Amino acid sequence: MEPQQRIQMTLTKTKKQKPNFAQLEFGRTFTDHMFVMDYSEDKGWHDPRIVPYEPITLDPAAIIFHYGQTVFEGLKAYITKDHEVHLFRPDKNMQRLNRSNERLCMPQIDEDLALEALKQLIALERDWIPTEKGTSLYIRPFVISTEPYLGVAPSTQYRFFIILSPVGAYYKEGINPVKILVENEYVRAVAGGTGTAKTAGNYAASLKAQEVAEEKGYSQVLWLDGLEKKYIEEVGSMNIFFKMNGEVVTPALNGSILEGVTRDSIIQLLKYWEIPVVERKLGIEEVYEAYKSGQLEEVFGTGTAAVISPVGELRWQDKKMIINDGQTGKLSQKLYDTLTGIQYGTEPDPFGWIVKVK
Amino acid sequence: MEPQQRIQMTLTKTKKQKPNFAQLEFGRTFTDHMFVMDYSEDKGWHDPRIVPYEPITLDPAAIIFHYGQTVFEGLKAYITKDHEVHLFRPDKNMQRLNRSNERLCMPQIDEDLALEALKQLIALERDWIPTEKGTSLYIRPFVISTEPYLGVAPSTQYRFFIILSPVGAYYKEGINPVKILVENEYVRAVAGGTGTAKTAGNYAASLKAQEVAEEKGYSQVLWLDGLEKKYIEEVGSMNIFFKMNGEVVTPALNGSILEGVTRDSIIQLLKYWEIPVVERKLGIEEVYEAYKSGQLEEVFGTGTAAVISPVGELRWQDKKMIINDGQTGKLSQKLYDTLTGIQYGTEPDPFGWIVKVK
Ligand SMILES: Cc1ncc(COP(=O)(O)O)c(C=O)c1O
Ligand SMILES: Cc1ncc(COP(=O)(O)O)c(C=O)c1O
Repeated sequence: MEPQQRIQMTLTKTKKQKPNFAQLEFGRTFTDHMFVMDYSEDKGWHDPRIVPYEPITLDPAAIIFHYGQTVFEGLKAYITKDHEVHLFRPDKNMQRLNRSNERLCMPQIDEDLALEALKQLIALERDWIPTEKGTSLYIRPFVISTEPYLGVAPSTQYRFFIILSPVGAYYKEGINPVKILVENEYVRAVAGGTGTAKTAGNYAASLKAQEVAEEKGYSQVLWLDGLEKKYIEEVGSMNIFFKMNGEVVTPALNGSILEGVTRDSIIQLLKYWEIPVVERKLGIEEVYEAYKSGQLEEVFGTGTAAVISPVGELRWQDKKMIINDGQTGKLSQKLYDTLTGIQYGTEPDPFGWIVKVK
Repeated sequence: MEPQQRIQMTLTKTKKQKPNFAQLEFGRTFTDHMFVMDYSEDKGWHDPRIVPYEPITLDPAAIIFHYGQTVFEGLKAYITKDHEVHLFRPDKNMQRLNRSNERLCMPQIDEDLALEALKQLIALERDWIPTEKGTSLYIRPFVISTEPYLGVAPSTQYRFFIILSPVGAYYKEGINPVKILVENEYVRAVAGGTGTAKTAGNYAASLKAQEVAEEKGYSQVLWLDGLEKKYIEEVGSMNIFFKMNGEVVTPALNGSILEGVTRDSIIQLLKYWEIPVVERKLGIEEVYEAYKSGQLEEVFGTGTAAVISPVGELRWQDKKMIINDGQTGKLSQKLYDTLTGIQYGTEPDPFGWIVKVK
């Protein structure tokens, strides 16, 4: 059976009023429908269906509420000037979803079916994709453990969802440098933990540090390794890059940071442009030394939400680094323009990253 | 207003059939009612109520499903031979719940109100408390974040629940030594992380190691510190004690292990009996050395579920330690008998640990 034949569709009777697409907040508005699929030990994944967006009803003892056995993904759909709908490397997200599933002792998902479900759902919700510059439709696939059981053990029942949320440009004027605080007390993840998986607990663990950073006037936290608090890991929901000493450096995938799809794309783009780029262990001290000697040219975060987020200020204990005069650097801007150009179809796609939704 | 006046009560119309109390599995059966209370930024905690046990209905974008902002507790109610209902140090659980709330950026709960709610709920569900030896009513308070929002930020809405589950004796014949595997690859928690909080992500992170241990024939994992993998932390859902070299040693509260109520009670009991007990950093190598020199007399886990769980075998890499010939040690037995004696009211309660439900 072809995947597209297997997805049942139940349409909503009462369509929601669409929000003002010029004033969208991230992650607050959801479309009319969602995709759902169930898992049980005897049937495996079954009953894939598109249904009206509606509340989830679960037993109070469902494992998700107690032991957080859950994984998620985040990607976007973009409307091009030719009115086509683009997805950006959605296969990478489905692969990562399955790597997360593996780490959390959850069943693998058929990636082709998930992608097909995603496409059908987006085709149905096409009118929900905003068209203003920099806007897009945020896509959130997630899997939750639904068995009612208070023992600490993998669930025998799961539910997979895809929900959609129209989102505005992350920064109104294209891109805007942010102030970031290097975290010295709290830890997000450590090798052997769940840092490489996109799972709820990592984000719950990050809330406190984020709260403290905001109180001090910083918008994000830069995590150091949990062991020695010396080596750079990543930012809240972005990987991070440093242009210094004539090359671009980003922390290597060390078993505790998330393998970002944007990160991978940026590395490929830099190589394509023959700009030296290295993935390695990078100490915060080394970054500070480069700063002092005038060799720290640009710092930027990469992620699906913001694409490229230039860092204008980096604070590490009592040391304040103002990067590129607090302005967006040339390379950051070029990467942002190229990547969004590929996503919105105004630039060629030499890597075959775009998947079209028909 | 007195707390007891503030709790609304709605009784179920259809009482469930009670299970066979002689054959209870842990955490699978729930009583007829539950306690619920809501939180919003403008009202704070409000609308405390006892209602029929029923499914929870939440928006698919509720923060709990994505970022795991949630905390929980676990304690028990016991029926004494005089038909009284005992709680064991419930104030400690409510205090710990609030410490967990603090770590997870969640609002504090009125501990007196929560305790009063607990008592009223248990009084209502009295017939659900099993009376067979070693059985009890397991109590699960928990708080979930309910705001529909995909941004990574503390929720502005929460719901607090207390659900109840009649549970059998953890081991049929009183206590029974278990085989435990020392974990060398995966990490549960690290200082600066969420290990001291009772929050979902810690348990999700532990599933994989537990799965591997079971495949190898071990029932639990002993976690080492996440930094050097040298120092002993705790077991799945128990703290751990070693009787060696003439004293009882348990890992100190180091910022990554849970502060167990049973752990604290055991330490107090040992001091009361004038048995030397120390809380300190304890290397697995040191335990192995004590084993080799014949100085490792007993090892036992402590927790609400099993009370005392003697360890009969400890495996660390290729080294197998058979403890006390795989039998329950004298001290383990005495601690088990005394603690359960206090809980079930057959032993005096010199510390004032028991709270009666009227
Ligand atoms: C912890 C973390 N790191 C990095 C990223 C960036 O990953 P991606 O580029 O795939 O969006 C994200 C967001 O998904 C994240 O949550
Ligand atoms: C991780 C962990 N450690 C230790 C314990 C033991 O704590 P307590 O004695 O309060 O039950 C528990 C169980 O609550 C636990 O989940």
